[in-house]
Amino acid sequence: MENHHQKATNGFSKPTDYSTAGRVITCKGEPFVMEQVQVDPPQKLEVRIKILFTSICHTDLSAWLGENEAQRAFPRILGHEASGIVESVGEGVMDIKEGDHVVPIFNGECGECKCCKSEKTNICSNSGVNGFKKVMTNDGKSRFSTKDGKAIYHFLNTSTFSEYTVLESACVVKIDPEAPMKKMTLLSCGVSTGVGAAWNTANVQPASTVAIFGLGSVGLAVAEGARARGASKIIGVDINPDKSIKGQEMGVTNFINPTEPGKPVHERIREITDGGVDYSFECVGNLDVLREAFLSTHEGWGFTVILGIHAAPTTLPFHPMELFNGRGIIGSVFGGFKGKSQLPHFAKQCMRGVVGLDKFITHELPFEKINDAFQLLIEGKSLRCVLQL
Amino acid sequence: MENHHQKATNGFSKPTDYSTAGRVITCKGEPFVMEQVQVDPPQKLEVRIKILFTSICHTDLSAWLGENEAQRAFPRILGHEASGIVESVGEGVMDIKEGDHVVPIFNGECGECKCCKSEKTNICSNSGVNGFKKVMTNDGKSRFSTKDGKAIYHFLNTSTFSEYTVLESACVVKIDPEAPMKKMTLLSCGVSTGVGAAWNTANVQPASTVAIFGLGSVGLAVAEGARARGASKIIGVDINPDKSIKGQEMGVTNFINPTEPGKPVHERIREITDGGVDYSFECVGNLDVLREAFLSTHEGWGFTVILGIHAAPTTLPFHPMELFNGRGIIGSVFGGFKGKSQLPHFAKQCMRGVVGLDKFITHELPFEKINDAFQLLIEGKSLRCVLQL
Repeated sequence: MENHHQKATNGFSKPTDYSTAGRVITCKGEPFVMEQVQVDPPQKLEVRIKILFTSICHTDLSAWLGENEAQRAFPRILGHEASGIVESVGEGVMDIKEGDHVVPIFNGECGECKCCKSEKTNICSNSGVNGFKKVMTNDGKSRFSTKDGKAIYHFLNTSTFSEYTVLESACVVKIDPEAPMKKMTLLSCGVSTGVGAAWNTANVQPASTVAIFGLGSVGLAVAEGARARGASKIIGVDINPDKSIKGQEMGVTNFINPTEPGKPVHERIREITDGGVDYSFECVGNLDVLREAFLSTHEGWGFTVILGIHAAPTTLPFHPMELFNGRGIIGSVFGGFKGKSQLPHFAKQCMRGVVGLDKFITHELPFEKINDAFQLLIEGKSLRCVLQL
Repeated sequence: MENHHQKATNGFSKPTDYSTAGRVITCKGEPFVMEQVQVDPPQKLEVRIKILFTSICHTDLSAWLGENEAQRAFPRILGHEASGIVESVGEGVMDIKEGDHVVPIFNGECGECKCCKSEKTNICSNSGVNGFKKVMTNDGKSRFSTKDGKAIYHFLNTSTFSEYTVLESACVVKIDPEAPMKKMTLLSCGVSTGVGAAWNTANVQPASTVAIFGLGSVGLAVAEGARARGASKIIGVDINPDKSIKGQEMGVTNFINPTEPGKPVHERIREITDGGVDYSFECVGNLDVLREAFLSTHEGWGFTVILGIHAAPTTLPFHPMELFNGRGIIGSVFGGFKGKSQLPHFAKQCMRGVVGLDKFITHELPFEKINDAFQLLIEGKSLRCVLQL
């Protein structure tokens, strides 16, 4: 079933042009270096999509660096934020067809498990986010291989740093074909995660107060979400002073640089909010920052949402009795969005301008320049650098 | 202003009989030994009450043993679960008058602070529970003293192991005069804390599943509250096999003794609830138990309420990423009840039999037998031993 369609790697064929269905596709992939990759056809309840755009998130960087030892798996195709067009679907896929415009989601929604059937969560027991997963559920094998047949591992249900990728259909969301695909890429992870954390996980109320620790794309998306909800005060905290200007675009009303001399950040926040914010968001992945975020909320109802990834083995930096002050804390995955059910509506809200996507795209490069894109992220110069395949 | 009214220590005078208003009262108190105590008149916004009944809670035991080093203060009058009659009120007290039947609350409700004005919390910034507080707010002094004038410290806003005590009016709740005072004693702490944790903090829903770790009075009150709400499965966990029988009276449907050989408790609970309970309650104050309670809830929406007191310096036994599974955790103080606003209604519900109070009173003794009552608690033989003054 191997078939080298080098042409398929250039430009974007129209859906009707595809003659690759059911065949292995060979294309460019990039864990560390750009190389030829074989992509098997989708099996039962799987979908093969042609990636149009992909961007880079810190989670890709962490995986690239192998920061979480237990989750290391190489060779591997990273990438989880993207948009694309369905090339072919496997047996039993009913809701998606060839040519559909789609966004991959690392936190799938199978629709069948107890969690999917509950309105209370966007966790999915079958196709939810899983840092340890590296092969397909169907047969425990990879759909990627080198030209000489060696398996290349999957990443976060998605593996979008490839011209073609295979996903479980639970991880593929159909989007309005009129939506601009480049922007829709942002809904695949960062913007959905941040805006959703404000809307779904915290349920930020009009006139409430918010503190955001870490103004990367996710943190700024939280600000954008809080702004859209009518928060009266949005305090951004970042050690990079450049984030003050960018933050203002997303609704940040007060900026605190923790490296500037003065009282602890939580005390400064409590002072300017009469006792603390209603909601705080930790978007860094640092325990000291998490503690500051927790303490910066108001006693009685303050609510801290963890968005940052904490890799090292450790425990939460709180004494159990500190939870008796009425402050809550919870983690948010994919902003609490049930991907397949809710993302299409969110996409429409973005198209209507409820949330502005443009300002998150600070750079655009061809896919071949992926290493430059990583460098921009490492240096804190980019929010999202969208790579065009 | 010293006036020895030894007669006042015997029996229950009718409200109109009181001639002690405005005078120091000398009566029996019991931190470690029964001795004569002077009780000053109530000052501004304070209330002096004659205790009719008091009972003993583990928090008294912990304080007696000085388990929390930073909170130690001796000599001190312990006790915080009681019922009584108002002997006199200080300046500015408008909602309570001499002769009122009242229940003291260790977690007050001033009605004026930002927290009291919010519907989201029962924390009170002015008169809330405070383990470090040992004197009155008005003047930073105690209202108790030995006969030779040495100050005796207050405890938990209440100090009910005394024939008379002085409280801030924020910590005194007026109860329907037709309510049986002996039973109302239980609303002062244990039963309100447990039932309220199920009703207010967790908001247990009909047909939901519940696990309760530790079947002391508070844990059993959680069961009683969950039963009243129509929970379909109430799993009680305790190392004391005798609690199995008592638990059934309060609605426990399944009993697990963790000391019996087998899988970890959270696995057993997950097995009998198709993936975990909706709510778990930690009523022990032990980190290992807290972790089991957390893991016994269902991913996605499981909610753990901490009720046990964790004295030792420590941190929560969870990795930050464990909060990404959609499990929440929060502490509950006084069952989330706003004491002055909500306890009178709860008292009426108890009188109507929504919650059964009788079964919590396992022993009754005269106040002089307080050491026997402590022994019953230490040996796990009593739920509540009510002491009559």
